[in-house]
Formats: sequence, C-alpha cells, structure tokens
Amino acid sequence: MGKIPKEAKLVFKGQIFDVYQWPQQLYDGSMATFEMLKRPDTVFVIPVTEDRKIVLADQEQPGKRWLGLLGGRVDEGEEVLDAAKRELLEESGMESSDWELLYEIEPHGKMEWTIYIYTARQARRVAEQSLDGGEKIELIYLSFDEFVTEILKPDFDGRELQFEVIDPVKKEALRQKLLGN
Amino acid sequence: MGKIPKEAKLVFKGQIFDVYQWPQQLYDGSMATFEMLKRPDTVFVIPVTEDRKIVLADQEQPGKRWLGLLGGRVDEGEEVLDAAKRELLEESGMESSDWELLYEIEPHGKMEWTIYIYTARQARRVAEQSLDGGEKIELIYLSFDEFVTEILKPDFDGRELQFEVIDPVKKEALRQKLLGN
Repeated sequence: MGKIPKEAKLVFKGQIFDVYQWPQQLYDGSMATFEMLKRPDTVFVIPVTEDRKIVLADQEQPGKRWLGLLGGRVDEGEEVLDAAKRELLEESGMESSDWELLYEIEPHGKMEWTIYIYTARQARRVAEQSLDGGEKIELIYLSFDEFVTEILKPDFDGRELQFEVIDPVKKEALRQKLLGN
Repeated sequence: MGKIPKEAKLVFKGQIFDVYQWPQQLYDGSMATFEMLKRPDTVFVIPVTEDRKIVLADQEQPGKRWLGLLGGRVDEGEEVLDAAKRELLEESGMESSDWELLYEIEPHGKMEWTIYIYTARQARRVAEQSLDGGEKIELIYLSFDEFVTEILKPDFDGRELQFEVIDPVKKEALRQKLLGN
C-alpha cells in the first residue's frame, strides 16, 4: 500500500513483477537510485465445509508440488473478495455465503505486495474444478488439529500462517474464527 | 540456491533485483513465460558482548526507521561469513572470534534470495562505526528477555526471527546458542 513513492518510474514491466526506481538523497547529501518491486496481490482462502472440515490444496505446478492454501492472484482492477470467491470456485468448485478476512500481510519490505487470507465458512460444492493448464489441485479435508499439524510442517507453503498457529492464543483465535465455539 | 533454471534469460538488471524469464510448457501442452527474481543475499548478525548483552540496531535510512538486526547485503563474490564480519565492523565497530551460523532462510518462493543469521559471541568494540551515507545506526544493548520482547513487537524488522522465538523450544535453543548455559 503506497510504499513506492509517487515520483518513482516504472523501469521494467514483467510477467509478475514490475520494477520501480527513483532518485533518493542520502544523509551525506549524495544521491542514490532506490528500487522497489510491485506484484499482483495474493488472496488465500481457508474453506470450512458444512461438516466442519477445513480444506487444503495438494497442489502441483510445473517444477513443484506442495501442500498449501487454496487461492491465487488478484487480477488488475478486481476486488479482493471477488478474487477470493473466483479462486475458491475455480480451484475447488465451492461457494460460500459466510466470508471473513482473517489476515492481511505485507511480507516483503521492498515489494508492494499484500497477502489476504479469508475463511469461507459453510462452503459447499456447486461445480467441478476449472483449473489453468499450469495447475493440478487435489482437495484435502482435515480437522482443525490435522490442519494445524500440516501448517507446522517445514515444507508447508505459507510461513506467515505458521506464525499464527504456533502461538497458542493466536491458534485458539483462528480455531474460533473457523469453527466457532 | 539454483531455483532459477539454467535456460532462463536475464531480462532486466536492476539496482538490487534482477529479473529472469524462461518458457515453460504447461500440463495442457500450452506454453507460458515463467518469471523469477534474483537479489543479493542478506547477512544478519546477533552480537553478544563479553558481559552477555545482545546488540540490536536502531536504524534509520531515508524514508524509514526501525529496530532490527545488524547486517546488510553480501557483495558479489564475497563469502557470507566475510560479509557478516564486514557488516558487523562497519555498523558497530565490533569484532568477534566466535562466530556461528544460526539460521539460513529462503523467504520467497519466486526469488533467489537467502538470509543468513549469525551470532558473533564475545563481541568487542575495536573501532568506530563507518556507515554509508544512507544509514544511521544506534546500538541497543539488551538482555535475552528484552531482546525477545523487541523481536516480538509487530513492527520488528524480521518476521523470520519472530518465528524462532515464539515457540518455547526454539526460543530456549536460541538462548543457549547466544548465551550458553
């Protein structure tokens, strides 16, 4: 959010990453070129089914395979919640009428990039998956404890979420957000 | 290390970030351009003085101010430990003969970038600070508990390290690495 100064110039426009540069005066009066990146925001969704199972994605893309959250990039001009609904429907065929934003994270100091993590409670299958050519996703249904165990594995894709469940107070707060009392 | 495939082409060389692209066949046979970044590795140092104080940096650069670890970029062709020694000497005027690598972290899936965190025990002042024109650093001397308190503040620069002290087992392991028994 607004980390890149207005006077910065777009010096490279990539597939994902755009590079901005601007001149910056240092404390000793000399000038330097500062640089920062911008990339599309990411939205993740933690669906909870009507029978209180939490859904993770066993995901494969060319060159890697990992267990992680459902979700993807927010398209240009798209509302974040709309992106969350679109990604959930595409990747799982699920819909929900009970959405809540759980976390909003800016992981990288030199990059304009926000990760939004939503829950979608009372999620139900309404369609088949419709995946990109570059994706294979298998849905995994877990209890809350199983979900936490997976998140804490070293190769789980999402250290930010690990941070939210390793602290017992934050973990209980997440459990209540997902499952209620 | 080696995340960017050999056939990737350098399409932009920035001040910090280089952008690589390569063609990738997807599961449905179609082709897409994949993109990844490379940036200089980072080395952080946690010095422990002879009277068992842990040193943090109250740091200011144009546009931001924050409490964090001493350290900086690894120069091209420089050994990581040499970079750690150089940064410690420049930023604090300290030297140590008791170095140990504590953590090696790759924070970002789409970027070749490793963060190395060292401790430098028995650290002692041997020189004045010699800072870049773009830096102001004040040294802060803390007990282990005060150090952990600072790390856990939401605006501490280094979520990766927060993860290492919020878990009691990992926190005790860090305490022993820094201070011994």
